[in-house]
Amino acid sequence: MQPLQNDRLIRALLRQPVDVTPVWMMRQAGRYLPEYLRVRKQAGSFMALCTNPELACEVTLQPIERFPLDAAILFSDILTIPDAMGLGLYFEEGEGPRFQKPVRSTANVNALGVPDPETELRYVMDAVRLIRTSLGNRLPLIGFSGSPWTLATYMVEGGSTKTFSHVKGMLYSEPRLLHQLLETVATAVTSYLNAQIAAGAQAVMIFDTWGGVLTPEDYRDFSLQYMQKIVAGLTREAEGLRVPVVLFTKGGCQWLEIMADTGADALGLDWSTDLGMARKRVGDRVALQGNLDPAVLYATPGVIREKVAHVLAEFGKGSGHVFNLGHGITPDVNPEHAGVLVDAVHDLSVQYHQ
Amino acid sequence: MQPLQNDRLIRALLRQPVDVTPVWMMRQAGRYLPEYLRVRKQAGSFMALCTNPELACEVTLQPIERFPLDAAILFSDILTIPDAMGLGLYFEEGEGPRFQKPVRSTANVNALGVPDPETELRYVMDAVRLIRTSLGNRLPLIGFSGSPWTLATYMVEGGSTKTFSHVKGMLYSEPRLLHQLLETVATAVTSYLNAQIAAGAQAVMIFDTWGGVLTPEDYRDFSLQYMQKIVAGLTREAEGLRVPVVLFTKGGCQWLEIMADTGADALGLDWSTDLGMARKRVGDRVALQGNLDPAVLYATPGVIREKVAHVLAEFGKGSGHVFNLGHGITPDVNPEHAGVLVDAVHDLSVQYHQ
Repeated sequence: MQPLQNDRLIRALLRQPVDVTPVWMMRQAGRYLPEYLRVRKQAGSFMALCTNPELACEVTLQPIERFPLDAAILFSDILTIPDAMGLGLYFEEGEGPRFQKPVRSTANVNALGVPDPETELRYVMDAVRLIRTSLGNRLPLIGFSGSPWTLATYMVEGGSTKTFSHVKGMLYSEPRLLHQLLETVATAVTSYLNAQIAAGAQAVMIFDTWGGVLTPEDYRDFSLQYMQKIVAGLTREAEGLRVPVVLFTKGGCQWLEIMADTGADALGLDWSTDLGMARKRVGDRVALQGNLDPAVLYATPGVIREKVAHVLAEFGKGSGHVFNLGHGITPDVNPEHAGVLVDAVHDLSVQYHQ
Repeated sequence: MQPLQNDRLIRALLRQPVDVTPVWMMRQAGRYLPEYLRVRKQAGSFMALCTNPELACEVTLQPIERFPLDAAILFSDILTIPDAMGLGLYFEEGEGPRFQKPVRSTANVNALGVPDPETELRYVMDAVRLIRTSLGNRLPLIGFSGSPWTLATYMVEGGSTKTFSHVKGMLYSEPRLLHQLLETVATAVTSYLNAQIAAGAQAVMIFDTWGGVLTPEDYRDFSLQYMQKIVAGLTREAEGLRVPVVLFTKGGCQWLEIMADTGADALGLDWSTDLGMARKRVGDRVALQGNLDPAVLYATPGVIREKVAHVLAEFGKGSGHVFNLGHGITPDVNPEHAGVLVDAVHDLSVQYHQ
């Protein structure tokens, strides 16, 4: 294997010196890109796109061909694991994800098996291998999974929810059953991420989209604890390089200190926290990834550059910052504005790395 | 006027001694109550219910007749002000609120007038007067309004939103226009709340449902600043009693210190913050209201009592705590469980007031 031509992402996640701040965008392969919409249409459905390694590879590479991004991220869905567990994932147009068989009872939880990534989730591993081959040694590839708590919310609710009534009903009334479910999912996520690393992912990220709906105590017991188990079980070196792990809990800015204690290399931040304050709070334990409000991309190029400058200044001098949005890029954004963001990060961050 | 028979709410909001911790629930007059659903059906539509003082009074009183709550809260909607500004509020079943005329341009903002509460919003003031007459001196009545930022999100988006694309587009690209809009709305909210106080509201609460989607800087400039102006402009005494003001920013737990500096008497908290930690952070500047996860009401009575005990213990000894949910009670909750909560607060809080 040749060394990476652009290893800024890996270096910044490990708090090693870089020339400029690396940048990628959550959902960078997505609906704001007309070339994505074409492939999505060709695939016929969202899941058809996810389960086709060639098409998943194609859309993964689209944003890095358009913009000078510092990383590619696997195009996939966070619900591949519960789908592989036999819950029957499907999407209704404009309705979000649904499961045919929600997990509500002890019998449902007992029946859950841990999928073998190279059989039931082989389409994901094939996509990872194909993307790595296509990327060559240009840029690193980020693999990912949903957190156990986040996956459990969909599994127990049977889809998206505003009230979390079923999963919180289980949390408050049958906490041991929920722990059993989370244990199984954590084992599955560990094996899934290790398989992605074996297939070629050079960094991995755990998305805890719904950790922020928990109380501080329940976050520790029902979300963070299981992410910590995953971090402890991950392959941390591949191809002679450290494989950094990033944790992201949306709405979790109150809990950065305990997240930094998990052994993760970096934390993703949404835009509700000042990056400079966050840096002070976590010290040199972890790198930080974030945290521009994605809605800034609705503004003019001049404003986008100004807000990028602001986030860079908040972090300040030195390595340990990966620039990102605080949440996924939204479908109605002008793709040229994403390009303005990427260029601004590179142009304006030179001064912080001299 | 006779003195209040139950003045626990007012006393706790002013951090004066009480015998037990007072309790009320956000959305306590709402869809989880079968008697509410009957009146809602009779009214024909949600807005018909809001604009009919007799029916609004009837549903306001329903929860206090069913449970030994320590306060009534006016039944109304946060969007009455923009509706009175001529934006044409309507509701589509299962779709949330909509405005026929969203506010997007300079001309739209310039055209906004400040409604006179006793004419355009007379139905609200009539409801307040009717409720006060019906309540007699049993319990205090809480009035309320949405915050300027929260109202602006609906006014600019034309309804509910997940991406806040229009209002944040305005915030980032035309901040002065948004400030002009917020200034007008803040003037309207001040006049609206003062009219509620004149009509008989004995405490008022400002709901900043969407402050939590802002960056820390933008929260200060576009939400908190205008709530502070309102607090400064409110009538703080009526019928010889202090009229306490409560601020509630959902997702705003990172900003409690600056919220406490506004001059409000109390802060509402969602469940993402430990109440004991919050109390340490704000010291004796303000009382705290909250913060049980509303999803606890999906659990068994035993668990509800246990979780109520936990919140009471977090706050600890002394006055300055009004028990509440961290957000509105959800429609699918068993009403008996709400009763369990109210009784548990009174039973279990005696020890903290001796």
